[in-house]
Amino acid sequence: MPDVLAAARRLRGVVHRTPLERSPWLSAETGTDVWLKLETQQRTGSFKVRGAYNAIATLSAEARARGLVTASAGNHGQGVALAASLLGASALVFVPAEAPDAKKRRIARWGAELREIEGGYDEAHHAAEAHARRSGATFVHAFSDPAVVAGQGTVGLEILEDLPGVRTLVVPIGGGGLVGGVGIVARALGRGIRVAGAQTDETRAMHASLEAGRLVSVPYGPTVCEGLSGDVDERSLALASRVVDEVVVVSEAAVRRAMRRLYEEEGIVAEGSAAVAVAALLDGAAGPGPVAVVLTGSNVDGARLASVLGGAD
Amino acid sequence: MPDVLAAARRLRGVVHRTPLERSPWLSAETGTDVWLKLETQQRTGSFKVRGAYNAIATLSAEARARGLVTASAGNHGQGVALAASLLGASALVFVPAEAPDAKKRRIARWGAELREIEGGYDEAHHAAEAHARRSGATFVHAFSDPAVVAGQGTVGLEILEDLPGVRTLVVPIGGGGLVGGVGIVARALGRGIRVAGAQTDETRAMHASLEAGRLVSVPYGPTVCEGLSGDVDERSLALASRVVDEVVVVSEAAVRRAMRRLYEEEGIVAEGSAAVAVAALLDGAAGPGPVAVVLTGSNVDGARLASVLGGAD
Repeated sequence: MPDVLAAARRLRGVVHRTPLERSPWLSAETGTDVWLKLETQQRTGSFKVRGAYNAIATLSAEARARGLVTASAGNHGQGVALAASLLGASALVFVPAEAPDAKKRRIARWGAELREIEGGYDEAHHAAEAHARRSGATFVHAFSDPAVVAGQGTVGLEILEDLPGVRTLVVPIGGGGLVGGVGIVARALGRGIRVAGAQTDETRAMHASLEAGRLVSVPYGPTVCEGLSGDVDERSLALASRVVDEVVVVSEAAVRRAMRRLYEEEGIVAEGSAAVAVAALLDGAAGPGPVAVVLTGSNVDGARLASVLGGAD
Repeated sequence: MPDVLAAARRLRGVVHRTPLERSPWLSAETGTDVWLKLETQQRTGSFKVRGAYNAIATLSAEARARGLVTASAGNHGQGVALAASLLGASALVFVPAEAPDAKKRRIARWGAELREIEGGYDEAHHAAEAHARRSGATFVHAFSDPAVVAGQGTVGLEILEDLPGVRTLVVPIGGGGLVGGVGIVARALGRGIRVAGAQTDETRAMHASLEAGRLVSVPYGPTVCEGLSGDVDERSLALASRVVDEVVVVSEAAVRRAMRRLYEEEGIVAEGSAAVAVAALLDGAAGPGPVAVVLTGSNVDGARLASVLGGAD
């Protein structure tokens, strides 16, 4: 928890203190007070910049001077690129060649150098780690580094400041950095706050690992929540087992419905990895109110958004 | 101009002071520095709440106690509903029965009473005016009341505060309230700032009237810019003729393209009535930089947004 407070001081004036807004729609649907933490309005369109900035800011000057490297075509890549640029460091981001051009441009716009790797995210990740070993550049992990966890935890801190009576937090889980940080804050500052995680059938590594009590690999299918796809690790699993009360697993169709209704009812564009928390809320994760749901990001491709808004599932 | 400063004091802490953000995409496209004033992030999703609040706040206590009435299924309706609720007044909003349910719900959520009128906007408008005459309730005009103009002018004030060197302003024109208020500020505070208005082929009442030097009715076709549709009046025309340098008229297809590219390049959902200013910018309204473009609102139906994002025009 001290780490989260220190992260909050570092992030002040650097990232947006995003609004926590009451959702009339979700409050009516669940019969309890529901609030949305709008990281959809965060710089780069997602919360990831918080952890990336805190991690890079706490490196030694020497480590920073060797340059930063990571692998991501998505929100973490943007977060590292912006954070590095703000801290005067150079960043090299390995991206899968197949990633959409718009995503690559959004990383490049913050001044990061891009390196395209044939294949998917795994190939880019391996290439980035190999580069870090070879060159001495500092690898910025997407979820497991304690400084990343502390940075993400500031989301929880802001929720508790704005809504001290909150009794349930609903948080999307991918690698587990966000729910770990938010959970640390809830355990340290809250009185019996329930922490519910949200995943889909196709991204349920944390759910399966918590159930098994050890790291479990699960098969991944096509998902509208790319940001949540992938395995967890020992460190994020250990933290989640301490601070997460329950993980609610929903269908991909439920996430698409949640995206569509969030737009129709509240005018909010949320990416699948964020809307999964709303789907979980509607599927029983509500718990005692007031409830705060972390809407982690807004980065959806136009074609995907068109398909979801025009859909009927 | 004193009225705009007074409006700014009234609106402080009531509406968001929205960000003015540089657009890397539009700066590259036009070869000059382009900034976006993000009223898309305003409360109710549009700038209209500024004028509505200022108008209602400056009524006498007696006039406010008689209740407020207006006609709109859109942004002005939401603005009046929120402003009335913040000021403890009751509001009755006449809406065309054919308007989408989601739009009606967004007005009702602020506590306004809705009255549905068979027909379109004209019928709702006449019914609202008749009600005001009959009941003594206070009609809140969408663009022509000087207090509305002063409220909208605060958009211009914030732009000049954040970007004192701005040389061109690009502003959508419907009835002319926003461009009137912003233009007053530009003339009073700026040194030779160019004020360019934006309309489409199907919403060019102000353009036609300025050209003719008198009120001209123009035929309206189907438009993606419902918020700009309708005639201007003597007062808004007289003001525009003093403060607007040029009105750029673009095609409906250009507005749809601008909506799509704003989303793809900048992740911004803008309604047609807002994106028209980006279309005008790309069509030669750029003028000397830095340029500030007012993105007036984000309220687009899901089906419309899906169609635009999935389109190819």
